[in-house]
Amino acid sequence: MIARALPASSPTSPTARHRPVPFTAVDIRDRLWSERQRVVLECTVPFLYDQCEKIGMLEALDVTTPPGPLAFPYRNDGTSTSVMYWDSDIAKWIETASYTLAMHANPELDARIDAVIARITKAQQADGYFNSFFQRREPSRQWTNLRDWHELYCAGHLIEAAVAHAQATGKDTLLNAMRRYADHIGRRFGTGPDQKRGYCGHEEIELALVKLYRLTDERRYLDLARYFIDERGRQPHYFDIEARERGQDPANYWHRTYEYSQSHLPVREQDRVVGHAVRAMYLYSAMADLAAELDDASLLQTCRRLWSDLTGKRLYVTGGLGPSAGNEGFTTDYDLPNETAYAETCASVGLVFWAHRMALLEGDACYADVMEQALYNGALSGISLDGERFFYENPLASRGDHHRWVWHRCPCCPPNIARLIASLGSYVYSVAPGEAAVHLYVEGRGRMEVDGTSLTLTQTTRYPWDGAIAISVDPQEAADFALRLRIPGWCRCAELTVNGQTIDLSRVTERGYARVERRWQSGDHVRLTLGMPVDRVYAHPDVRANQGRVALRRGPLVFCLEATDNPAPLHRLALPRVAEIACQFAPDLLGGVTTLTGRAIAMQATEDRLYSAQPWGSEGVPFKAVPYHVWGHRAPGEMLVWLPEI
Amino acid sequence: MIARALPASSPTSPTARHRPVPFTAVDIRDRLWSERQRVVLECTVPFLYDQCEKIGMLEALDVTTPPGPLAFPYRNDGTSTSVMYWDSDIAKWIETASYTLAMHANPELDARIDAVIARITKAQQADGYFNSFFQRREPSRQWTNLRDWHELYCAGHLIEAAVAHAQATGKDTLLNAMRRYADHIGRRFGTGPDQKRGYCGHEEIELALVKLYRLTDERRYLDLARYFIDERGRQPHYFDIEARERGQDPANYWHRTYEYSQSHLPVREQDRVVGHAVRAMYLYSAMADLAAELDDASLLQTCRRLWSDLTGKRLYVTGGLGPSAGNEGFTTDYDLPNETAYAETCASVGLVFWAHRMALLEGDACYADVMEQALYNGALSGISLDGERFFYENPLASRGDHHRWVWHRCPCCPPNIARLIASLGSYVYSVAPGEAAVHLYVEGRGRMEVDGTSLTLTQTTRYPWDGAIAISVDPQEAADFALRLRIPGWCRCAELTVNGQTIDLSRVTERGYARVERRWQSGDHVRLTLGMPVDRVYAHPDVRANQGRVALRRGPLVFCLEATDNPAPLHRLALPRVAEIACQFAPDLLGGVTTLTGRAIAMQATEDRLYSAQPWGSEGVPFKAVPYHVWGHRAPGEMLVWLPEI
Repeated sequence: MIARALPASSPTSPTARHRPVPFTAVDIRDRLWSERQRVVLECTVPFLYDQCEKIGMLEALDVTTPPGPLAFPYRNDGTSTSVMYWDSDIAKWIETASYTLAMHANPELDARIDAVIARITKAQQADGYFNSFFQRREPSRQWTNLRDWHELYCAGHLIEAAVAHAQATGKDTLLNAMRRYADHIGRRFGTGPDQKRGYCGHEEIELALVKLYRLTDERRYLDLARYFIDERGRQPHYFDIEARERGQDPANYWHRTYEYSQSHLPVREQDRVVGHAVRAMYLYSAMADLAAELDDASLLQTCRRLWSDLTGKRLYVTGGLGPSAGNEGFTTDYDLPNETAYAETCASVGLVFWAHRMALLEGDACYADVMEQALYNGALSGISLDGERFFYENPLASRGDHHRWVWHRCPCCPPNIARLIASLGSYVYSVAPGEAAVHLYVEGRGRMEVDGTSLTLTQTTRYPWDGAIAISVDPQEAADFALRLRIPGWCRCAELTVNGQTIDLSRVTERGYARVERRWQSGDHVRLTLGMPVDRVYAHPDVRANQGRVALRRGPLVFCLEATDNPAPLHRLALPRVAEIACQFAPDLLGGVTTLTGRAIAMQATEDRLYSAQPWGSEGVPFKAVPYHVWGHRAPGEMLVWLPEI
Repeated sequence: MIARALPASSPTSPTARHRPVPFTAVDIRDRLWSERQRVVLECTVPFLYDQCEKIGMLEALDVTTPPGPLAFPYRNDGTSTSVMYWDSDIAKWIETASYTLAMHANPELDARIDAVIARITKAQQADGYFNSFFQRREPSRQWTNLRDWHELYCAGHLIEAAVAHAQATGKDTLLNAMRRYADHIGRRFGTGPDQKRGYCGHEEIELALVKLYRLTDERRYLDLARYFIDERGRQPHYFDIEARERGQDPANYWHRTYEYSQSHLPVREQDRVVGHAVRAMYLYSAMADLAAELDDASLLQTCRRLWSDLTGKRLYVTGGLGPSAGNEGFTTDYDLPNETAYAETCASVGLVFWAHRMALLEGDACYADVMEQALYNGALSGISLDGERFFYENPLASRGDHHRWVWHRCPCCPPNIARLIASLGSYVYSVAPGEAAVHLYVEGRGRMEVDGTSLTLTQTTRYPWDGAIAISVDPQEAADFALRLRIPGWCRCAELTVNGQTIDLSRVTERGYARVERRWQSGDHVRLTLGMPVDRVYAHPDVRANQGRVALRRGPLVFCLEATDNPAPLHRLALPRVAEIACQFAPDLLGGVTTLTGRAIAMQATEDRLYSAQPWGSEGVPFKAVPYHVWGHRAPGEMLVWLPEI
């Protein structure tokens, strides 16, 4: 939460880097996430399917039927339509649904996924190409506008779906189809004489290809991902070349700058997070993947530079990012307006992806801190408790006119946050030779293997509502290894015992993880107690919007005030610096959340005038704050994260 | 400045209402305004002429020559272009230049004005119509789109120019031409069977016709103004009707709501200031004129309601108004963002017009207070000290990217603020039976007549830099009358002496004016001392942007901080509530201004992180503030009116 300094140097050799324990081996049983997973499984997955059906997304997979009129225009000049991205939304639905299958067998859903996959494989061309939009509507324009037209982006999501489907079900129907598509792409793109030296305007294919490589162990997919990364931003610029080939002036580009797609420079020369925030997160995720797989020090250094820039100057306290609606992305340093924050749900989801990769790659808790910050706040806020209402933008203040919606012309966020929730298990544990690590504290169980020994870790905790965590460590047989437990950056007072013996954290903590190396045997129990007071958070003095303001945080959760809980208009409130703040768990509120309460000051309109030469009167009033991620479920009204402090 | 409560009831009969002492009878000799008038005369008037010539405005008056391509498009769909308003800009130039002629004889300028007028009269049609755009480019579209096309608006400015030219020079060349045009308009518009029941989307003609009536005493011009006011907003809506006549769907209106032009309701049913701010000010000015001329109580009540709404909920502390660029106008109550404030110069100029009319109509200082507030701050900021650089928008905060410009595709503001400065004399004094009033304190002399006796009032003062005002009262012969002296709303401590005798202000002050009734004789001297400490101003608690913030004001002037005067980035500064603030006149700074100095607190970026659980460090730093109206003349950088107060 409070960004820690980056580690001074890179950790040990790539072979020592951590691999995640996959979602298939992790059960989540806590109150918060297991309920969210249940809702995704029971509500969001069928709901999204129904929406896809309703707007014609599924029908559009039948590429042999003539297309109807474009019902969802995106740009007025007809050059782009959200229909162009539909394959990606279906892919994210398949991916999400597959994850839920791994949690709970569901033959009906299994069959439904198979039916959607069958439509895809039926439509796929003999040469491996598949894109329902281009096959059906624009066959002559395939691969002619990588800058704007999202073909490789759609391919990437389909590949991610194929990998998830194979992992969750063991079936290779979609996997085989997408391998053929990836091979097709590999033939079309590259540095060879008959290949296009292109890459996608919206990054995604790169990280998908790494996933495909990891599942199949086929090196050519990794090489293709590397090609896309290495080629990006080179001169002569591919987007210029293809624009001229289309008979268009490259300068006549509606986003004006290739920063929009992080292709303004070769990636290794980039040192600022710029442009479209989701694209940036997907790119950096792939860069971290390649840095790990290829032991590429220059990519790692670039990732570290960009991480520093993001977390040091351009990240909301909620883990939201990309303040501007204009480019759905980044602007200038410290430009973090609250009410107009774009902070797209997908961007925070993407940050979780990147942070997770960096955490495994670098083994430093600064990354998992940010992963947790984005997960619990800016990403989770994007989906309602009932799984059927969504935020696209996640502002940190509202006058009462920002509401969760049922559907969007660009419906990328709902399946994105849903797939993250459904696969959350993958983010909790990791293993490396001689080590198992716990990155997130969530009640439940993870099964993994350390140096050939099966190990089960069972967490019992009320986290994030309480900082007490009991971990039962159960190797199949006694074994020497280290258990690494993240001590969150927000925690200033932690205690650790192993089988009742206190461990001196100052001696065993490295890179933000308590590392307990011993001969573990079944029945060993670890107790980690993370002090979880209510913290006041202050933004850097160059964040204009928050000057003189304070945010409230407890554990990983950022809190906000909603009008419905508070007696005075929120914009009239200020928090005295000395005000005591109580926290209380409210089991019946918003699915069960901790609330913060105390006394604030409410300015009073004591005079009927607009300006006064005297400070306005004020009175003490009670206030109540709820976790940011559950805001927007009740009576519409003002919302505020940053309160003036007096 | 600090809006006073409105008077509880209307004043005496209309015959007792005040008439302004015209600019032709007022000499201004103070350092601030006389210098501004000199600059308008010597620099702005020739500069604007040159600009008009350069962009082809003057050439465009020759309607018999074929038009070239439209060089200044305004809307992409080709339905509107700023060229459509060029006649109004030329008219405002004639008006401004005429005012300066009254100050200083200038045969060359006189001849130049005559030449421009000759081009207009030459182009005028036999039937009286004159509009260079429509005659030259769109003759078939005359009077077909009153909603968007500014024909009557241009006519109004030409009429104002004609009145000013006649007043200043005694010549009737333009006046006669514009009387013919007004008569033409009177034939085309009205409730008769062959007349169009239209009115202009951009109000202006109404107040111009009242001016024409006052000069010519021709009642039909007043009746025509009244017709335009009475017709406005009636159903069936004229803009709907004419849109259908053009074969267009009235619903397909780019501004969506007729609030934009204050034609959403009949004017007497309006109770909120809405839409385009300049239009609103011109409309309300005409309504005040008609309320005075026709003793129309319902119009007066409407003006009072709208005044209350504007000054109580929608006015910047600078006298700026209309926060939104989208409609160049009003939004919602208390919505007064600083950095994105549109606050067009023309809107503050328009507010001076309206406030002046209300002041004369109601005889209450609350109106002259706002007139002074807008004049000295939000209006005057619109023109540079050298008279050749302009602000269109007048934000109350800048990150350093808002600069004065030389020319604008919609060059309405430069001649608008210039004509106000050049005619400032008209705003200083007024007379009524048995009374003479001083509304503004400006060194110089006014000549007027009270009940048939010639009276000269001579002010000696350094106002607005100092609150001491000496007034020499010189009637041609001893006479009984009342002298009314405004006690500004910002002043909490005033003293008055007449011939050395102290007057008890609590006994003689009514409606914000000290009213001294006696037999005055030549040589009488009045001393008014207005306490002028530095005030801290606090905005209503519902003004979100200013919560916890304070503005600095001294006398009528609002101050601001500019980066160039201050050591720390302005957004890091806060002003302790107890900080002492010194003021000092700096004769060599920005033409000679008072500066405010003191110690502020500058937040320090003591840690290399974006968020901290501890408040950031701070240090005491000196600060300096300058009058808002002179900002933007030096090194570009941040500017701030509202500072956090701690």
